[in-house]
Amino acid sequence: MDAQQLRELGQQYRVDSVRCAAAAKSGHPSSGMSAADLMAVLVANHYRFDFDDPKRAENDRLIFSKGHASTLLYAIFRSAGAITDEELLQYRQFGSILEGHPTPRIPWVDVATGSLGQGLPIGVGMALAAKKLDRLPSRVWVLCGDSEMAEGSMWEAFEHAAHYELDNLTAIIDVNRLGQRGETMVGWDLDTYRDRAHAFGWQTIEIDGHDVEAIDRAYTEAAGTTGKPTVVIARTIKGKGVKEIENQPGWHGKALDHPEQAIEELGGLRNIHVDVAKPEPAQAHTFPGGKLELPRYDVGDEVATRKAYGDALAALGAARGDVVALDGEVSNSTFADIFAKAHPERYFEMYIAEQQLLAAAVGLSRRGWNPFASTFAAFFSRAYDFIRMAAISRANLRLAGSHAGVSIGEDGPSQMALEDIASLRAIHSSIVLQPCDANQTAKLVAAMADAEGIVFLRTLRPNTPVIYGADEEFTIGGSRVLRSSDDDDITLVASGVTVPEAVKAADALQEDGITARVIDLYSIKPVDAETLQAAAEATGRIVTIEDHYPEGGVGDAVLAALAENGERALVRKIAVTEMPHSGKPAELLAAYGLDAEHIADTARQVVREAVSTA
Amino acid sequence: MDAQQLRELGQQYRVDSVRCAAAAKSGHPSSGMSAADLMAVLVANHYRFDFDDPKRAENDRLIFSKGHASTLLYAIFRSAGAITDEELLQYRQFGSILEGHPTPRIPWVDVATGSLGQGLPIGVGMALAAKKLDRLPSRVWVLCGDSEMAEGSMWEAFEHAAHYELDNLTAIIDVNRLGQRGETMVGWDLDTYRDRAHAFGWQTIEIDGHDVEAIDRAYTEAAGTTGKPTVVIARTIKGKGVKEIENQPGWHGKALDHPEQAIEELGGLRNIHVDVAKPEPAQAHTFPGGKLELPRYDVGDEVATRKAYGDALAALGAARGDVVALDGEVSNSTFADIFAKAHPERYFEMYIAEQQLLAAAVGLSRRGWNPFASTFAAFFSRAYDFIRMAAISRANLRLAGSHAGVSIGEDGPSQMALEDIASLRAIHSSIVLQPCDANQTAKLVAAMADAEGIVFLRTLRPNTPVIYGADEEFTIGGSRVLRSSDDDDITLVASGVTVPEAVKAADALQEDGITARVIDLYSIKPVDAETLQAAAEATGRIVTIEDHYPEGGVGDAVLAALAENGERALVRKIAVTEMPHSGKPAELLAAYGLDAEHIADTARQVVREAVSTA
Repeated sequence: MDAQQLRELGQQYRVDSVRCAAAAKSGHPSSGMSAADLMAVLVANHYRFDFDDPKRAENDRLIFSKGHASTLLYAIFRSAGAITDEELLQYRQFGSILEGHPTPRIPWVDVATGSLGQGLPIGVGMALAAKKLDRLPSRVWVLCGDSEMAEGSMWEAFEHAAHYELDNLTAIIDVNRLGQRGETMVGWDLDTYRDRAHAFGWQTIEIDGHDVEAIDRAYTEAAGTTGKPTVVIARTIKGKGVKEIENQPGWHGKALDHPEQAIEELGGLRNIHVDVAKPEPAQAHTFPGGKLELPRYDVGDEVATRKAYGDALAALGAARGDVVALDGEVSNSTFADIFAKAHPERYFEMYIAEQQLLAAAVGLSRRGWNPFASTFAAFFSRAYDFIRMAAISRANLRLAGSHAGVSIGEDGPSQMALEDIASLRAIHSSIVLQPCDANQTAKLVAAMADAEGIVFLRTLRPNTPVIYGADEEFTIGGSRVLRSSDDDDITLVASGVTVPEAVKAADALQEDGITARVIDLYSIKPVDAETLQAAAEATGRIVTIEDHYPEGGVGDAVLAALAENGERALVRKIAVTEMPHSGKPAELLAAYGLDAEHIADTARQVVREAVSTA
Repeated sequence: MDAQQLRELGQQYRVDSVRCAAAAKSGHPSSGMSAADLMAVLVANHYRFDFDDPKRAENDRLIFSKGHASTLLYAIFRSAGAITDEELLQYRQFGSILEGHPTPRIPWVDVATGSLGQGLPIGVGMALAAKKLDRLPSRVWVLCGDSEMAEGSMWEAFEHAAHYELDNLTAIIDVNRLGQRGETMVGWDLDTYRDRAHAFGWQTIEIDGHDVEAIDRAYTEAAGTTGKPTVVIARTIKGKGVKEIENQPGWHGKALDHPEQAIEELGGLRNIHVDVAKPEPAQAHTFPGGKLELPRYDVGDEVATRKAYGDALAALGAARGDVVALDGEVSNSTFADIFAKAHPERYFEMYIAEQQLLAAAVGLSRRGWNPFASTFAAFFSRAYDFIRMAAISRANLRLAGSHAGVSIGEDGPSQMALEDIASLRAIHSSIVLQPCDANQTAKLVAAMADAEGIVFLRTLRPNTPVIYGADEEFTIGGSRVLRSSDDDDITLVASGVTVPEAVKAADALQEDGITARVIDLYSIKPVDAETLQAAAEATGRIVTIEDHYPEGGVGDAVLAALAENGERALVRKIAVTEMPHSGKPAELLAAYGLDAEHIADTARQVVREAVSTA
């Protein structure tokens, strides 16, 4: 399109932003209006996308990191013929896929945005996928707001994109100066953004974001730049085109008071169709697969489940070309380095930037790869918002968190994940697993690769005894009954490091004439309600033991499962109730009541209480 | 001290790092050794701190953002006479306060570190406290690792420190090039750090981090720089002084193989005493207080609890000079802007940088102020690791999260907090509150100011009816029974937006001859176990209703409280079980089963089931 047509298209996007927000009586039209020219030039002259086949690997990707500018995105969809005008005007209605912020319920949207500062780091993951894995010339375009440049995650993305020389990535910053409640820290000082981006290794282009010819040149320059990503820093006016709201505070996230008048001022309704260019057909690179040969460990050996994770992941990588791995600069602790050595082309070092770690995994997942991301379980908390949003993005992520709980020992509480089970169980349609031995870990790692949604595997720092044979099968949602008889007095439900302790406790109880059923609850979500139910019915009393704080962990998962079935067993939780200290693992397990001796004591007490109240 | 003495002191710190790690057989001595000269010059010639009175407001603060270099910090404490040599050698033992990473169990440590990238943003909070609130010349010194410069939170700190012109803040980057598993992205390219820091508005000084005279000059220059913070970028050698490990990969987080030999190479044990200078006595600024006059709302009016939060916080600010507020660029949504207008000197805009928001609150708290931090409840997930660490720091934080749950309506799932109760309940010794009306909110805001630990107040976007009189009292850990009789058939436990729905459901049930007890569970942690217990005993069946995902929320809190007391009531949870969409609040409450009609339906079903199985 020529300049005049582009300007008209920009006005159409503004009109449509005003219209759909007016119909919804909410939305962020002023934020769409500032970026309308930036997007008009992009979709008309630079973007290559097959609306009929949005999953094609050759497609460019467009991410609205400023997801609140959704009116503009949906206006683009209308101009491309992807949605009708009627559908546009259903914006934000309950039945519509055109939600307040974009989600992948819309076929042409890859990831959910709306929590600011996430689109660019996810774009880094997509650009990594295109350049290093798919090896296609597809480009990733990310529209960023200027307010979200205050999010540290944006600078993680800047650093990583430059480090990985992602010249297929273009960030477009819509510098309209105004945030929700006032001016940004940087305002219209474009040079500051330029200096920062430069210092982080990017090509920079400063333009007037309403000069369509300058925009067009900028995108051409961006596409032609090699060896580094490009940021287009565009000075824009919030609410551009409607005098009443132009560059005025107080107009963020509001439909206009006088939409009809605004539409008239903008030149009225238009129906320009954009014939978005389709990408050249090309074949994405794939990595060969093979037969899955999981590692095998001998029963009785002592192996850390984190080590088994690394071994199994490397084996999985050999079997499946779609598996990729990322780690947050602790791969020699999580043992992701075993995969990195075996499959260096499919390993991405994310350094100490957990938000970027997660975001890259989301981007890789949504480009069809199968990402396993690892760090200490405690440090996934750094990226919790990204995990929350990944669920809305319908990403399939496999997260391996090592060094869980007090059993890590001397490093102390900052490194001990003790709220990870709770926080990750609360993620929509998540899966939470905690194996206790190496063979079980290997089987679960293989199962993770085919799971839908966000799977969290909690691994342990210390060695634990191998108690399962290498041919035993473990499935998501299962459990293992390790001790059982027809006249069990009590059930011990353990997971991870507390499983061998519970087994030892059962032995000790046996000497007192108390027979304990022992359940290895390796799948905490979904949980094996049937086995728990049967145990509750058979024994009437349950003790749960977890290396985690009491809220939202194994014990609460058991209580919830029993409640679901209307079961009213007596349940006592053992969990870490104090702020833990440094110390030796065995000292800490004892101090917080998680070792065999304390488990047996609690079980004896529960049996006594139950007898005395019976 | 002169140069020769400083060099000797640096060597002492190295020797002590080697010694205590050797005794513990773990720790990160090589990371302490790179920064030993940097710290020797600081504590001997620049740092002003009263070890006998560490809480004095006039004291400088020293934060080890690279908390794993704790051997160095403890070596400093020995040199200052704060701990004995014997205590030093108890490093990482269970009984010792000298944990693997520093925590405030140590009297001279203000905040816990060990999750990287947190010390500097917390330092920003402390520097804000010193400069803008205490108005004392005290300085904040933060020792940063180079690996942690990859954390986005560091750049949030850089931007905010410059924005607030914190010339009392000095960051010292120990650029030893090596992370845990290899080289950083930047390596020894000091100019890159300089350019980035410059672009973020800082004064920069590049030095050889082992040249004590250069270090001394750098600190003098930093202390003399006005209007902006200073970063000292120091090229150092990891493991400096011991040839076997100097600048070698593979020596992160390990005690040395040959400590005796290393100590000899370093010149042997030293016992140099540092007489750390005490600060000049001075009086910290305080803000006047007054009588607390909380806002009062009329029963029957419709008011959003987020609005009541803002009103109450402003009133609290008038009554108490220690109360300060911060917000993440949404103060016109959280209504923190009411406080900001009333008390501009005690309000800090943190822009869209939730990690810095939390970190600043931690810093303010640990300097004796009483910070209330607000953003959308969903966006506290962005700072979850900071909240986790704040608990280890024993910070007293008051967090107000607005726009919780599906009741926000059209903005869609990215803005809906639905895992916040679960994730915040799991924080050690946290308090989780969710008021349903404006008067209740006001009372709880006042109660928050005196609470220990991390208090989370979940507020609502829509207006809800005022149901409590302005003189009713609400305490943390309480609940309110809204409907009750001697022959209740069932108990409805609601919280927040579901309270008025539960009341309406009880009315509807009454027409069917079912009498429902209704409990407003405004304190979710700690929970009023006694009232729940009494209800369980009286009615035998409970339905919980929460605008939250099912895991770890109100329902699980109820189950856990009942289990604690050995109570076996039938509990049915109503929660959001699908990924929600955009829509009108009422449509969404209905769609996810949270409105009066669906609550009544579920209650009828539970009563029927219970009857049929009886």
